[in-house]
Amino acid sequence: MNLHLTGDFHAVTAAHNLLAAMVDNSLYHRNPLGIEPSSITWPRVLDVNDRALRSIVVGLGGRLDGVPRQSGFDITAASEVMALLALSTSLPDLAARLRRIVVGWTRGGEPVTAKDLRAAGAMATILREAVKPNLLQTLEGTPALVHAGPFGNIATGNSSVLADLIGIRTADVLVTEAGFGADMGAERFFNIKCRTSGLVPDVGVVVATVRALKAHSGRYQIAAGRPLPEDLLAENPDDVAAGAANLRKQIENIAVHGVTPVVAVNGFPTDHPSEWAVIEEVAHGCGVRAAVTTHVADGGSGALDLAEAVLEAARERPPTYRPLYPLEAPLREKIETVARRVYGADGVDYSCPAAQQLDAFERHGLGDLPVCIAKTHLSISHDPSLLGAPTGWRLPVREVRASAGAGFVYAVCGEMRTMPGLPSQPAATRIEMDDDGVISGLS
Amino acid sequence: MNLHLTGDFHAVTAAHNLLAAMVDNSLYHRNPLGIEPSSITWPRVLDVNDRALRSIVVGLGGRLDGVPRQSGFDITAASEVMALLALSTSLPDLAARLRRIVVGWTRGGEPVTAKDLRAAGAMATILREAVKPNLLQTLEGTPALVHAGPFGNIATGNSSVLADLIGIRTADVLVTEAGFGADMGAERFFNIKCRTSGLVPDVGVVVATVRALKAHSGRYQIAAGRPLPEDLLAENPDDVAAGAANLRKQIENIAVHGVTPVVAVNGFPTDHPSEWAVIEEVAHGCGVRAAVTTHVADGGSGALDLAEAVLEAARERPPTYRPLYPLEAPLREKIETVARRVYGADGVDYSCPAAQQLDAFERHGLGDLPVCIAKTHLSISHDPSLLGAPTGWRLPVREVRASAGAGFVYAVCGEMRTMPGLPSQPAATRIEMDDDGVISGLS
Amino acid sequence: MNLHLTGDFHAVTAAHNLLAAMVDNSLYHRNPLGIEPSSITWPRVLDVNDRALRSIVVGLGGRLDGVPRQSGFDITAASEVMALLALSTSLPDLAARLRRIVVGWTRGGEPVTAKDLRAAGAMATILREAVKPNLLQTLEGTPALVHAGPFGNIATGNSSVLADLIGIRTADVLVTEAGFGADMGAERFFNIKCRTSGLVPDVGVVVATVRALKAHSGRYQIAAGRPLPEDLLAENPDDVAAGAANLRKQIENIAVHGVTPVVAVNGFPTDHPSEWAVIEEVAHGCGVRAAVTTHVADGGSGALDLAEAVLEAARERPPTYRPLYPLEAPLREKIETVARRVYGADGVDYSCPAAQQLDAFERHGLGDLPVCIAKTHLSISHDPSLLGAPTGWRLPVREVRASAGAGFVYAVCGEMRTMPGLPSQPAATRIEMDDDGVISGLS
Amino acid sequence: MNLHLTGDFHAVTAAHNLLAAMVDNSLYHRNPLGIEPSSITWPRVLDVNDRALRSIVVGLGGRLDGVPRQSGFDITAASEVMALLALSTSLPDLAARLRRIVVGWTRGGEPVTAKDLRAAGAMATILREAVKPNLLQTLEGTPALVHAGPFGNIATGNSSVLADLIGIRTADVLVTEAGFGADMGAERFFNIKCRTSGLVPDVGVVVATVRALKAHSGRYQIAAGRPLPEDLLAENPDDVAAGAANLRKQIENIAVHGVTPVVAVNGFPTDHPSEWAVIEEVAHGCGVRAAVTTHVADGGSGALDLAEAVLEAARERPPTYRPLYPLEAPLREKIETVARRVYGADGVDYSCPAAQQLDAFERHGLGDLPVCIAKTHLSISHDPSLLGAPTGWRLPVREVRASAGAGFVYAVCGEMRTMPGLPSQPAATRIEMDDDGVISGLS
Repeated sequence: MNLHLTGDFHAVTAAHNLLAAMVDNSLYHRNPLGIEPSSITWPRVLDVNDRALRSIVVGLGGRLDGVPRQSGFDITAASEVMALLALSTSLPDLAARLRRIVVGWTRGGEPVTAKDLRAAGAMATILREAVKPNLLQTLEGTPALVHAGPFGNIATGNSSVLADLIGIRTADVLVTEAGFGADMGAERFFNIKCRTSGLVPDVGVVVATVRALKAHSGRYQIAAGRPLPEDLLAENPDDVAAGAANLRKQIENIAVHGVTPVVAVNGFPTDHPSEWAVIEEVAHGCGVRAAVTTHVADGGSGALDLAEAVLEAARERPPTYRPLYPLEAPLREKIETVARRVYGADGVDYSCPAAQQLDAFERHGLGDLPVCIAKTHLSISHDPSLLGAPTGWRLPVREVRASAGAGFVYAVCGEMRTMPGLPSQPAATRIEMDDDGVISGLS
Repeated sequence: MNLHLTGDFHAVTAAHNLLAAMVDNSLYHRNPLGIEPSSITWPRVLDVNDRALRSIVVGLGGRLDGVPRQSGFDITAASEVMALLALSTSLPDLAARLRRIVVGWTRGGEPVTAKDLRAAGAMATILREAVKPNLLQTLEGTPALVHAGPFGNIATGNSSVLADLIGIRTADVLVTEAGFGADMGAERFFNIKCRTSGLVPDVGVVVATVRALKAHSGRYQIAAGRPLPEDLLAENPDDVAAGAANLRKQIENIAVHGVTPVVAVNGFPTDHPSEWAVIEEVAHGCGVRAAVTTHVADGGSGALDLAEAVLEAARERPPTYRPLYPLEAPLREKIETVARRVYGADGVDYSCPAAQQLDAFERHGLGDLPVCIAKTHLSISHDPSLLGAPTGWRLPVREVRASAGAGFVYAVCGEMRTMPGLPSQPAATRIEMDDDGVISGLS
Repeated sequence: MNLHLTGDFHAVTAAHNLLAAMVDNSLYHRNPLGIEPSSITWPRVLDVNDRALRSIVVGLGGRLDGVPRQSGFDITAASEVMALLALSTSLPDLAARLRRIVVGWTRGGEPVTAKDLRAAGAMATILREAVKPNLLQTLEGTPALVHAGPFGNIATGNSSVLADLIGIRTADVLVTEAGFGADMGAERFFNIKCRTSGLVPDVGVVVATVRALKAHSGRYQIAAGRPLPEDLLAENPDDVAAGAANLRKQIENIAVHGVTPVVAVNGFPTDHPSEWAVIEEVAHGCGVRAAVTTHVADGGSGALDLAEAVLEAARERPPTYRPLYPLEAPLREKIETVARRVYGADGVDYSCPAAQQLDAFERHGLGDLPVCIAKTHLSISHDPSLLGAPTGWRLPVREVRASAGAGFVYAVCGEMRTMPGLPSQPAATRIEMDDDGVISGLS
Repeated sequence: MNLHLTGDFHAVTAAHNLLAAMVDNSLYHRNPLGIEPSSITWPRVLDVNDRALRSIVVGLGGRLDGVPRQSGFDITAASEVMALLALSTSLPDLAARLRRIVVGWTRGGEPVTAKDLRAAGAMATILREAVKPNLLQTLEGTPALVHAGPFGNIATGNSSVLADLIGIRTADVLVTEAGFGADMGAERFFNIKCRTSGLVPDVGVVVATVRALKAHSGRYQIAAGRPLPEDLLAENPDDVAAGAANLRKQIENIAVHGVTPVVAVNGFPTDHPSEWAVIEEVAHGCGVRAAVTTHVADGGSGALDLAEAVLEAARERPPTYRPLYPLEAPLREKIETVARRVYGADGVDYSCPAAQQLDAFERHGLGDLPVCIAKTHLSISHDPSLLGAPTGWRLPVREVRASAGAGFVYAVCGEMRTMPGLPSQPAATRIEMDDDGVISGLS
């Protein structure tokens, strides 16, 4: 549930939906841009989990109520405006990116942008406060910039460029997060975000847990929405070792970008030291530093060893970061480079629509954008059932979309839900307010 | 365009849509409350003018994407949550009103409330900041509480009870506004808002303009969306007099509640003093004070005469305010009392569905609510073409809805749009941001 | 259930839906005629009771699947093609009428016809066999032409012109039926069908039943779908007399067209002779012949008295038939003539869309068509609760539609269902076929 | 365009749509069978090419207008009722098959049949005339039974069992057609239709054309909807030979069922004898008879050589027909047998839903049905671009549906359109009727 802490989400929602209203308004007022209604890819967004809005028909009612067409809502975090906000380097840069948003295509196959609809100025105005990062502090007083939240499965999943640019100027060390695994969050950090920010990372921390590596052994029955199996908690260093191929591949996925990896063993009280030791051995076997961090139980002091390992790694050699591919490479080559070198695929298969979309994007000047591959986070491949570091498979690209404003082309592999649903007992049902206005059930 | 100044609108949007998602989620998860899908009256809301969302089909897609049904979006100002926020006396009162919201009906004809869906606690939590009035100041430094904005045509159209309760404790005189005419805003102020706030008004100011009374003469061709006819600006006191029946009726509509009327002649630089004099004569003929106020041209000092007339009227006699009808009266009697005594109708005609709804509301304990009549503001009647103080007509009630949370039953007379559309050149298209981030086109 | 006896219904369904497919196909192929999608009034039809098809959204799916819009299905009997078939005088006349069908309007407000879509030739080809009347015989060997079945509530409700033209040439006397009361079926017969056929009726038989006149007394609680009250069967000539105003008005509705009325007392075995006598007295009081006919119990011989009364009436004087209004009269005048002189209304009220439609029809050359008023058959008025021969009421016209091909403009007063639904136990569920192919449950 | 020659199509349409109306009616009347709306697979059908009906939302309007859900229309030929009619051996067998139709599934995962809805008796009654084959004659006076027309891409594509049973009893030789290639029409004839009819074929004629084999050479650019390339008509026996792998595989596809193949060289006036000779050589190389037939140019006399070749082949040895798989084999095994032995695939891949459907069908007693594989007719594989006799590919099954009434399970490979659309200039636009009722433009 959204407690509208900062206003980012509201502003993104408002700006996104203003553009959506202007698209349908243009269709309604005799369609001067010649937009092909079925080609419109700009949804509406709301910051609520509402599956009934995934697939809708709008514009019903009568002559005065718009043009009927199929459409849908995404959750606000999946908005291209959110991704765009996270990648902007300034308010004017934000405005320029907004102008480049492609909402659909004309009947003649030309892209229709927010600039064509003259919506970008108003959108930038709505976002003029939201572009400023929020400075919060942790319980221990460490300053933290909290800003933007793009979906990790279809967008970069990284926090904002502006927060990093501010942070790096105000402290000795900037720690920034890249969501959802070194194959996804980190790859996009290196190949999309670093190009935008111009910042060069010294160290890449790979977070490993005993439980995740045991899961990658393939020896446990784990299903989303079900409690974890109990035997996952028993001391079993062999199973950690059996899942270690995944960790080795992710260490490699940092190093391939010229950045020094450090492994953080994210320790939980229910873990066993023998299991931590396996992880540290794997790291050392790859020639990289590792440190157990117990901040979950001990707070900041539990992470001191990790902090020292990171600083040592940073001091050891100058940054040699390099992106994985040049922007000038064709889109297919960029997708295939990520698939082969980061995911370990044998190659890429494109569906017929995906191939047509790639051609259209290159024809219309979007070929120089970096690529963002939307796939499951449960496997390094596109298939959640392939554990460890799978080989001998090909990546199937079902669809390709242009986030021209955010500044990347994303390739969809498999079903990606962009609007969650509520469970049969939503968390909201546990929140109560008593007669004195006291709220319970929030945690 | 929404510049999200205060956060009220975002919070109302979020709370409203959480409830909507929980309604559809309950249908989806085997409908434990037995909700009849076609009886659901709770829409979704967005704070954007988007005609394509007025009438939609939700829940399409497939088995995992909800239950298909017709629905729609209103603009946030038309949300019952907004009306409810404006009528709440405290956070716990807000929570209690949220629990009483009726979202639809069971197959057996019982109301389904936000409490039944266990949504009200979370909604109140979302609204816990929005319930606090915003203290702003005018350009001259007068403190002003700006809080809530319920739609004047389907809800009370008054600012919030909480702002009034705070204002009355912090100053000698509290001026509060009631939107859209003495027949609508003031009637609802007296019969709905005053009952909730417990506050007793001393004086009711009727604002009159030369142009409006000329329009009520029926001698000008005025159409929404067209420029006003030029001859409306020529000096013509006779035409003002010809439209005065409207003003006399509105003066009476204040007095009928036991409150002293004062007429404010809202003077514009293009008016003529001879025309103002006609208005003052009409007021005096009704035995009430009148004062010309030129604040449009002169700021606060232009309203000093009016302020004195109001204070004199207030000092003259103790308040004798009385609501127009007792809450215990049947719903039809309450509607007819407003129609006959405030609007001047000969009676009320109910459509077949309206009659069934009234019976259902009385059967389910909603009969003691006050009534809010949704009608045009262009006439004291329901028919925009009936000018002045029309008689010899009957009020047709097409539909009756329960705003059980806000605390009134509203009767719909004619077509009331609750989601506006954008014009062919939306104002947003004039807003630009240049390369320095400077915004133009906002005014 | 349709047992596809003759093929008319299949051919009408096929021709109607071919035109519908061509309308949507024209929208899809770049809309060369400039059709405004929301103005399309041509539905699709099926000869099955299927409420789920009343209101649908078509054209969903994707770019290759047409243009989304709201539409619906009527039952085949409600097709304008059925009404048109019944009013055609020859195959070429049928083709000419098909060409004139108006399916919707252009964005500029011009009518779009089946000729514009080049669909009429194919439609006529489909109907080339269906235009021929079916010659059947009764159980007693009397020849009967059974042909076409237009809906009595929205169309003429009369059997076909061609069947009458053939019948009148092959026998001394032609008996033809006009569905649903002298106020509806007969009025349309005189003012629409007779103009088309050129035939001049000698006699108009008004069929009266004891039960119907008792019902018009207002002394019984009768509800659609419920069993008739038992006391309706008790001997009660007073109640028949109390309902006689209805019969007197219907006799007058024949005479007003210059045609001699004869009253047929449609006798049932459960009636009482004293009740029949009341009806005969009413007829005689109006100066017209009456005869009891017992064909329900006795077959053809039971109708001999009636047959003689009719022949006598026919011989008595030459036909003086005259239509109620000239075709050149404005549409509003024609509607008001029927409303005042046949229904006994005080006048007609037009909704705002109805007034606009009437103006559009007159502007586009449809003003010379006769009018067909779609209303309930349960009252001479539009209101089923007004029994007998009501006075002191006005006819509300909600909507006006052009059946330009059939050759009339119809005015809709109240809700007219044009697609029935099935009951909870459809008749079809009682039909069984055993292992020898023997069918049961058909009656 | 449908000229409703025989009535089969009308009766199938009526019976099919009666069942559809009863499904939605059951949902509406409190859903006593517990049908899961999103699981309903029974569409509606119309015998018109109408793309706008492919994907629709039904049940909109209001509480009295049914239950909203997504659905669509197929063309009548794609109705399961048409396939079922073609496979029935008698009227009682037809009725029994109708009872077995599965329209959808309950929430608990049980099949819902036409019997459960008590619709089958009425459907059989509607079809009682349509079950009788139509006896026509050719221009040369040869009797021909024309009966039923199931879609060749999703159903058997064969004419009716009843027509064959009648034909075989009334003549020395029965020639029956199996649509769309030996890999599709003939395979279904052998494995579905022959099992139902109990008839044993003596000879299987493979029809080959010069143009088709040239196309299978892969040396020509041929696209649907475009004119054929002109050089296809030049004398070029080498290209015929280059495409001959396809013919060899189809000859094998007859022989694998134990039936003697004969090759008919379907000669056109534009062919060259050297090209016919190539085809004959291919046939002889496979050890089977071949004959050139010029009936296109010469009528029946042009087919005498072929007739003699067929009779010789039939006399040569007794029939040894055997189906390809036993019915008791699991569904997957049956699909794989067809894919490997007839299509030449390396194996079969099932999508996740297809696998679930196969399991559900076997669990509910549908595992003993034969299988019908819906695929393109442009290749022996599922991929229209694989010409000749492709090897080294796997068959992807996207979806599996149960035609439980017709009596087969069909596996969908790729996109199969079951409702065609009209072209931008429909054939219907060329049909005209003049003032004498004379029709032009039909051919």
